[in-house]
Amino acid sequence: MHAFVYQGPGQGSWEPMSDPELEQSTDAVVRVDATTVCVGDVHTLRGDASDVSPGTVLGHEAVGEVLEVGTEVHDVVPGDEVIVSSISSCGHCMACRQGVFGQCTQGGGWLLGHEVNGTQAELVRVPFADHSVHKLPYAMDRDTAVLFSEVLPAAFELGVRNGKVRPGAVVVVVGAGPVGLSALIIAGIYSPARVISVDLSPARLAAAGSLGADDAELPGRLIADLSEGPGADVVIEAAGSSDSFVLCTQVVRSGGHIANIGMHETPVSLHLEQLCRKNVTISTGQVDTSSTPWLLDVLSPEHLDLFSRIITQRREIGDIRSAYAIASSATSTDALRTVLHPARP
Amino acid sequence: MHAFVYQGPGQGSWEPMSDPELEQSTDAVVRVDATTVCVGDVHTLRGDASDVSPGTVLGHEAVGEVLEVGTEVHDVVPGDEVIVSSISSCGHCMACRQGVFGQCTQGGGWLLGHEVNGTQAELVRVPFADHSVHKLPYAMDRDTAVLFSEVLPAAFELGVRNGKVRPGAVVVVVGAGPVGLSALIIAGIYSPARVISVDLSPARLAAAGSLGADDAELPGRLIADLSEGPGADVVIEAAGSSDSFVLCTQVVRSGGHIANIGMHETPVSLHLEQLCRKNVTISTGQVDTSSTPWLLDVLSPEHLDLFSRIITQRREIGDIRSAYAIASSATSTDALRTVLHPARP
Amino acid sequence: MHAFVYQGPGQGSWEPMSDPELEQSTDAVVRVDATTVCVGDVHTLRGDASDVSPGTVLGHEAVGEVLEVGTEVHDVVPGDEVIVSSISSCGHCMACRQGVFGQCTQGGGWLLGHEVNGTQAELVRVPFADHSVHKLPYAMDRDTAVLFSEVLPAAFELGVRNGKVRPGAVVVVVGAGPVGLSALIIAGIYSPARVISVDLSPARLAAAGSLGADDAELPGRLIADLSEGPGADVVIEAAGSSDSFVLCTQVVRSGGHIANIGMHETPVSLHLEQLCRKNVTISTGQVDTSSTPWLLDVLSPEHLDLFSRIITQRREIGDIRSAYAIASSATSTDALRTVLHPARP
Amino acid sequence: MHAFVYQGPGQGSWEPMSDPELEQSTDAVVRVDATTVCVGDVHTLRGDASDVSPGTVLGHEAVGEVLEVGTEVHDVVPGDEVIVSSISSCGHCMACRQGVFGQCTQGGGWLLGHEVNGTQAELVRVPFADHSVHKLPYAMDRDTAVLFSEVLPAAFELGVRNGKVRPGAVVVVVGAGPVGLSALIIAGIYSPARVISVDLSPARLAAAGSLGADDAELPGRLIADLSEGPGADVVIEAAGSSDSFVLCTQVVRSGGHIANIGMHETPVSLHLEQLCRKNVTISTGQVDTSSTPWLLDVLSPEHLDLFSRIITQRREIGDIRSAYAIASSATSTDALRTVLHPARP
Repeated sequence: MHAFVYQGPGQGSWEPMSDPELEQSTDAVVRVDATTVCVGDVHTLRGDASDVSPGTVLGHEAVGEVLEVGTEVHDVVPGDEVIVSSISSCGHCMACRQGVFGQCTQGGGWLLGHEVNGTQAELVRVPFADHSVHKLPYAMDRDTAVLFSEVLPAAFELGVRNGKVRPGAVVVVVGAGPVGLSALIIAGIYSPARVISVDLSPARLAAAGSLGADDAELPGRLIADLSEGPGADVVIEAAGSSDSFVLCTQVVRSGGHIANIGMHETPVSLHLEQLCRKNVTISTGQVDTSSTPWLLDVLSPEHLDLFSRIITQRREIGDIRSAYAIASSATSTDALRTVLHPARP
Repeated sequence: MHAFVYQGPGQGSWEPMSDPELEQSTDAVVRVDATTVCVGDVHTLRGDASDVSPGTVLGHEAVGEVLEVGTEVHDVVPGDEVIVSSISSCGHCMACRQGVFGQCTQGGGWLLGHEVNGTQAELVRVPFADHSVHKLPYAMDRDTAVLFSEVLPAAFELGVRNGKVRPGAVVVVVGAGPVGLSALIIAGIYSPARVISVDLSPARLAAAGSLGADDAELPGRLIADLSEGPGADVVIEAAGSSDSFVLCTQVVRSGGHIANIGMHETPVSLHLEQLCRKNVTISTGQVDTSSTPWLLDVLSPEHLDLFSRIITQRREIGDIRSAYAIASSATSTDALRTVLHPARP
Repeated sequence: MHAFVYQGPGQGSWEPMSDPELEQSTDAVVRVDATTVCVGDVHTLRGDASDVSPGTVLGHEAVGEVLEVGTEVHDVVPGDEVIVSSISSCGHCMACRQGVFGQCTQGGGWLLGHEVNGTQAELVRVPFADHSVHKLPYAMDRDTAVLFSEVLPAAFELGVRNGKVRPGAVVVVVGAGPVGLSALIIAGIYSPARVISVDLSPARLAAAGSLGADDAELPGRLIADLSEGPGADVVIEAAGSSDSFVLCTQVVRSGGHIANIGMHETPVSLHLEQLCRKNVTISTGQVDTSSTPWLLDVLSPEHLDLFSRIITQRREIGDIRSAYAIASSATSTDALRTVLHPARP
Repeated sequence: MHAFVYQGPGQGSWEPMSDPELEQSTDAVVRVDATTVCVGDVHTLRGDASDVSPGTVLGHEAVGEVLEVGTEVHDVVPGDEVIVSSISSCGHCMACRQGVFGQCTQGGGWLLGHEVNGTQAELVRVPFADHSVHKLPYAMDRDTAVLFSEVLPAAFELGVRNGKVRPGAVVVVVGAGPVGLSALIIAGIYSPARVISVDLSPARLAAAGSLGADDAELPGRLIADLSEGPGADVVIEAAGSSDSFVLCTQVVRSGGHIANIGMHETPVSLHLEQLCRKNVTISTGQVDTSSTPWLLDVLSPEHLDLFSRIITQRREIGDIRSAYAIASSATSTDALRTVLHPARP
């Protein structure tokens, strides 16, 4: 098969390598029918993730067909079309039994494209398949389904759920990339009073507006009014920058929640000299993808239609470098997310 | 009467002034039988609280006898011995109806020694008396009772409750001053597996040990072992320094809680570049004192006996400058808290 | 003024009596602009509420204009148009401070039309006015607003909230009278998967269908299929009969909730011989009306439009006996709720 | 091997049968070192459980040594001494992933002594071993450990946790058999204000007193005082009779919880005509045993010492009929629980 292999900081290539095989009795081998490149992959390719070894196939999101399963895999069989979760769950350890798959203590967690070969390939070995893949619902669009690998569970678990979005809440989502946009759509399930999207990119603000944000603005007057006035009940950080985090702590009301989804590369300033008199909770963490079955159940066709608009580009997987280029410059274009497909024979 | 009056940064004096009178129909006038000086008062005297005007009587903690009440005060009558809460609650606004007295929107909140004359005086006018004083339980020691004005509700609300201490939890309390020590005692109600006290002062660590800490140590090996190993379920920040906050984020386990009680004067570094993969919640906020009735109900004579040992010094109130001196240097002595009494006639 | 006075079992008359006056400094006197008759009033008139004394003015729901307030009333002034809650809250006792107004221990609770003269009158004295009336929002229809006195908070507090309705839930509402219909509308806020209305009256089922129920059926095949199959996550009892309660315990799934709103006059059978192997919670209780401010905030114009359709009849208040007749026979007609207005001069 | 085999209503015998073997790759075979007879077994032997087929080995509690494991069992190996849970959990279905093992939908749930051969035998096949057995902690007494099979998780999950025992709570436990006594001991973890044990047997009340109940009385004055006065915050039904359930609904306060643990054989009267004005929650359900790891972690040596006193009789397993006789008449003797051991060679 061919795969996109990390060769050291800034270096990756689409190259031939031997097909993956079952290694453990809980493995499955999946033929990748759709995968994608996220900002995290861009960072990994740059070399920011020092624990990714050269030679590793990148990528942790995919939809595909199960080709082969180990003897201990019972929930899927060859021929099943599945969503591959970005997080692998052993299903046995205390963390996994509590749904905290991202902190698996018996060999799972974030493996794909990190500790083992990932999904930016024609084939991928998926460890702990029973707990880490989900059958694709009949009639769900395959490209939209790729968002269930990580984007939607991250938006829900880290943003909407940790932020405690509830009826009547004023919600601010900082960052209107794929995850921030998904958070604002999912927040709608809870009948918030108002969902406000903030970003530095006019194109992304336009996307937020078209996907249901009540307001979509550059940081400015609206945020200042909220900050000096009533404040937001829930602030979801989906930008991953230091400035955006500080903005979150300003715009949240006393009694409110800040839910961090963004991946940060540097420490941020926490203004405890102000917050120590303001009742705030801040939540951080890694996606678990344990909410995927619930999301598959709860999200309606109308939601799926909205999510489908996050897939703005499509490429052949051999052209994956262009997807990395798109993801690298996405904040200055109107591209949101690229889905990659195998070459049609 | 006489009172301790703030005269500008670093300047305060015990001086004669006219007796307080009822101003609102919800006021009470209380004769102060016991008051105290906390670290917050030391900061205020230094001029750190820019919103305290010269001419203000300092202090927000007291036990005393009600002398006079306004027409709308129904829950106490002259002659009642009461605990005066540091927070005044209007009882009507949405915040107060939800127990969030510290964020009262109709004129309450932290008033005493801040927006109105405080408790370091022979007499004090207490606004919103019905919601802001509590009858002293029969047989409770008056000096210990002063801790119910702020220390114990802060330790419970901001530390033990916000930190979600529960049976089997490993709890680290950073800071072994009066509030940190109270937090470790109150945490015991929930049958934690282990409560570890950390401080830089050997005298305070000795106090922590004698008050029930399972371990009481300088930051070092124990904290390093926890940080690199399983981590703590709950970390209570009761020191108010930047270093101690960073220590909290290191020692907490994934899935754990950091509950800030300490008053901070500068921003702290939040290592989101690490925490964005570790599931943590951080809570901040101001004491409400809405838990005081519950604490009066739940705490046993054995608890009260432990709390009484936090009162290490007693002075006549005219000698209040010595109490400020003790509070200023307390981390390097074995003094914990001074209670001030009126001069015996 | 005139008022509808209970004269003993089955006997009530619209008759002249002296105008109410302020009795306590926390009272308000309100001119009734709209009131209503509920099934509870019908029971009280029959003599089922043995603690209602002959001579009492009935009724506990109203909208009207404040004419006069006591010296301790601060939140409303004469001229304000207000919703009068069915429950009076002292605002001081522990129950009231926790929002449990229905269990007020200092003189409040269900007073109007029960312990003191009620709202089926031209004028009514409202005890504890600050905590028991709410300003009518600008532009809210007065007749719809009467539902905020009791119907909507009961539907929310006892049904939707106690039943823990949440996204994706299958909800069954047994009883399609005003409260049951309100519960199904409010449940929609939480994005349930499906809300099923069950009643014995075809007219009421038609109303349920038009107000948004996904299914509206006589108890029969649908309920049997649910009972023998997956079961409902939430079952709201809004009928008040023994049979309907048993149906609730059959249709609920293991892990589900039964939320009782209905007023019952006899014990019901609880099939613990089956339920002791099925994980179920059952909640009962009296409305608090403490959720009214939240409901006024959260419910949208679209919701209000739906609620307005519950007001199916309008009468002059002097014709109140016809409203009792309508309420008595409502389950066999298409009438839902009558609002009574003063005679136009 | 020999085993105690149900032969139809009232008929059971200790008889030879062929050794159990691994049937599924997730099975383990365990040599029974300690087992017991509970009231449920007595009912089953009487024929009350119509779904138990003649020929089934009874019993669902045991401690023993693993002799053999299937290829998919990873958490225990032959030679491990384990606690066998009364509930078998597949570990895969949605119920099991949420800890609701008792409602397993993929072949687990209450299997032992019910759908498959049980533990009152020399050897037992344990299905789904990875999720259904727990290594015996070093130094835990084997007889006490048998209580972890069902008695302690039932007391905690259905009683203490579902009843929401918390600091300061007044707790009434109705029934002072092994489960009720365990509930009162475990409740102590949460620092309740007072735990009151009620039973009809003076011997059991004496046991309750010696195990830490603050009061232990026949239903009478104390219960009447509570019922007419403040009421209990939490009432745990651990008797399984109709009268005891009614007592629970009387003694609970408004706002309180009734947690049913008892197995009932008939419907009970639920006085909704009173409860519809009293805010109460009632919880029912089957034990999950998913709390066992947490209990093993949280319970201290002091707790284990208390639990050990619940084992009042010891017999050789061949003499199991005497254990049934003891369990049948236990409420009129001072026997609490019998543990059965294999004959010493």
